[in-house]
Amino acid sequence: MASEASRDLGRLALNTATLGHNLDGYGAGWPIERVIDACAARGYGGIVFWRREIGQNAVAIGERVRAAGLEVVGLCRSPFLVGPQAPSGHEAVMADFRAAIDMAAGLGAPLLTIVVGGVEPGTKGLRHSLERVADRVAEAAPHAAACGVKLALEPLHPVYAGDRSCLVRVRDAVDLCLGIGAPNVGIAVDVYHVWWDGSLAAELARAGAARILGYHLCDWLAETTDVLLDRGMMGDGVADLRAIGAAVEDAGYQGFVEVEIFSAENWWQRDPAEVLDVIVERYRTAC
Amino acid sequence: MASEASRDLGRLALNTATLGHNLDGYGAGWPIERVIDACAARGYGGIVFWRREIGQNAVAIGERVRAAGLEVVGLCRSPFLVGPQAPSGHEAVMADFRAAIDMAAGLGAPLLTIVVGGVEPGTKGLRHSLERVADRVAEAAPHAAACGVKLALEPLHPVYAGDRSCLVRVRDAVDLCLGIGAPNVGIAVDVYHVWWDGSLAAELARAGAARILGYHLCDWLAETTDVLLDRGMMGDGVADLRAIGAAVEDAGYQGFVEVEIFSAENWWQRDPAEVLDVIVERYRTAC
Repeated sequence: MASEASRDLGRLALNTATLGHNLDGYGAGWPIERVIDACAARGYGGIVFWRREIGQNAVAIGERVRAAGLEVVGLCRSPFLVGPQAPSGHEAVMADFRAAIDMAAGLGAPLLTIVVGGVEPGTKGLRHSLERVADRVAEAAPHAAACGVKLALEPLHPVYAGDRSCLVRVRDAVDLCLGIGAPNVGIAVDVYHVWWDGSLAAELARAGAARILGYHLCDWLAETTDVLLDRGMMGDGVADLRAIGAAVEDAGYQGFVEVEIFSAENWWQRDPAEVLDVIVERYRTAC
Repeated sequence: MASEASRDLGRLALNTATLGHNLDGYGAGWPIERVIDACAARGYGGIVFWRREIGQNAVAIGERVRAAGLEVVGLCRSPFLVGPQAPSGHEAVMADFRAAIDMAAGLGAPLLTIVVGGVEPGTKGLRHSLERVADRVAEAAPHAAACGVKLALEPLHPVYAGDRSCLVRVRDAVDLCLGIGAPNVGIAVDVYHVWWDGSLAAELARAGAARILGYHLCDWLAETTDVLLDRGMMGDGVADLRAIGAAVEDAGYQGFVEVEIFSAENWWQRDPAEVLDVIVERYRTAC
């Protein structure tokens, strides 16, 4: 269809995890410059990096992205703030949290994604851990604001509640934001994590446009083989991407649409150029 | 503590899956009679079977259980009613659904657990599939009522939404029951599936005692290795079992507390006698 084939790509962003990130670069050994240029050549509007790709080169990489005509949309991610995989002790958590904020500022990224971490050792249930998350995000928010960085709390799928994210519902993320009350703290919504949630549209409306800081695309494969590394390309799964996208738009979100696909056995095995092309096609036809 | 050590076991039920069920019996080759007697000897109040353990012997097994001083608490389970793993076509689904109801009646089990199945092929999202589930449960409910069998809709963890259960929230299960409106249709609540849900207590209160037909115990291991077969023993995980149990009781539930642990690498490898003993100890100290 002509209208879909011509859908503007200005809001489309690549999360670099989608190309697989190895110790020596991305899929097929691409260096970061080639990823940037390949996105620009296809008309993508932005790019999202992971900290391990940036090292000490935040300022230079940010300038390289903008010179190619793209925006640095965000940075993944904060350390786990709580739970069994968080750095040991409050000071260690906050130091790494500040380092992530500083890297985002160096890149010129307006956004740092927060993955909050799982259940605090020695506790049961999610409540206690969520309270500690709120304290730590509230403590970091002024520094982030001074750096021009917003903090996006990303609820993860409930399958990760034990070890990676005590924040599993959009509702809880909205409550957390409202409770913290800092103008630079909002939420990121990822299809993979929230597609099953019948309250999504209502919660996005409750959050309001100012609190929705990111929207991530992929798909949930009906018979998924690995909850970490078997995400689907848009259209290949059972998430209702059109309905979810409409809910995000209806809530007033006008920011980037970020494609983030962890797929060790499928998409990470392919040529990055093919992956970038398929994303464009699916963005136009399946979302 | 004396009060815990003496906690009455009359409401404790074994779901036989907890002992591992193989083609030739249970763990360590126990036949079904030995499972029944071992539960009775320890003071368990009831037992829940799976259809494949029963075959054509429903009436005899039911009588054997009652002769041992136990109750048959329920039967697992309906066929998937929708989704990629459901029987092919409406008539095939309903025929197997009726067969499951008839088996429950033969056992003298007052309850059949329903696992609804995943997303209908060719559709996106959960809504369409849930509507079909509602239709099929409503169609089966009169036959079940005539057999003296209640139907317990069990929401499963959202990780199963694609292929095993489009019903993933207690809220949706309560809505489904209220929509169907049959007096013998209610919900079953399993700690493994709902422990992450901050709305659990409110939804159980909304359901009310008459709609809560079952309560299943196990635990969610913080760093679980397999979402099908790595459930934890009560106390070994991060679910807040005391808070969940209190919510179930506060909603008015007075029925059996059923222990159901799928644990291929741990509990299924142990002597069934040990497993039954540990359940008693944890039921008294961790729940």
